[in-house]
Amino acid sequence: MSWDDVSDTECPIARACSVVGDRWTLLILRELIMGTRRFDDLQAQTGMSSHLLSTRLKRLEKDGVVERRLYSERPPRYEYRRTDKGKELDPVILLLRQWGMKYGGFGAKDEPAAHMIHKKTGKVIDADWRMPSTGKKFTFDDTRSTISKRWTKEREARRTAFRAAKGLSE
Amino acid sequence: MSWDDVSDTECPIARACSVVGDRWTLLILRELIMGTRRFDDLQAQTGMSSHLLSTRLKRLEKDGVVERRLYSERPPRYEYRRTDKGKELDPVILLLRQWGMKYGGFGAKDEPAAHMIHKKTGKVIDADWRMPSTGKKFTFDDTRSTISKRWTKEREARRTAFRAAKGLSE
Repeated sequence: MSWDDVSDTECPIARACSVVGDRWTLLILRELIMGTRRFDDLQAQTGMSSHLLSTRLKRLEKDGVVERRLYSERPPRYEYRRTDKGKELDPVILLLRQWGMKYGGFGAKDEPAAHMIHKKTGKVIDADWRMPSTGKKFTFDDTRSTISKRWTKEREARRTAFRAAKGLSE
Repeated sequence: MSWDDVSDTECPIARACSVVGDRWTLLILRELIMGTRRFDDLQAQTGMSSHLLSTRLKRLEKDGVVERRLYSERPPRYEYRRTDKGKELDPVILLLRQWGMKYGGFGAKDEPAAHMIHKKTGKVIDADWRMPSTGKKFTFDDTRSTISKRWTKEREARRTAFRAAKGLSE
């Protein structure tokens, strides 16, 4: 019996894990949530190899979690977005964010990487914030965020390093 | 810049993923939630190699998500359990379960792998159940489950195949 094809199992957790139980996949989803749309930018911010990113994006597209849209015909260029099915993973990502805020080795006074507000209530979504148990399910569309200076700097450094490695100028 | 050590990043999602963003790790947690305690049983039910399982368990122990207890001195034998910090990942696993129930390719009339009841309210925890937004955070300690016949059979088959591969009799 092999677990390579976990759709062979009765367990829904195992089946979900076969789609998203992977650090890289979750980081791709994080970037898509942040509005990153293009392959190169996804690669710069996740640190994935081009081959690995391409494989994961194809898998996510096949699984209906991500959709690809042509935004330029010559040369052909694509944008990537979460589908509605993909957005239904937002609560998972939110809980991982909260667990990471609590246990990720941050100092109590550290500014969070993203200052996130729940639009409807105006509340800050920190490690203790609880998703409403009624109404529609949480998605990051319900939030607005400001990225901290430190994380902005980190992201710029990733972008610069990636472009330098590819031999592109800024 | 390398992402091998994601504790180098400001992003709490990336930090959380470095601990649990992995199909195998999530499956280990699922088994621990189900009450599986011993190395061989974890191996049989996750389908992991002994080396991979050992590596992941050590990492989880180091990260404070799992604890190991000696239950037999001669030969030394260990039991594995989630720590309180590990139980704080239960909401993540629950949401993965619900997403998997909805999108994992099950038929509408399929019996769920686990019939799960929220003890306090008596409600069935299905794909639509919502975690309470007040009170203490959800853990699987708040539930009781009955495993379906089909999943029981699958699990017995895994156990049998594993023992056969190890040359053990039933």
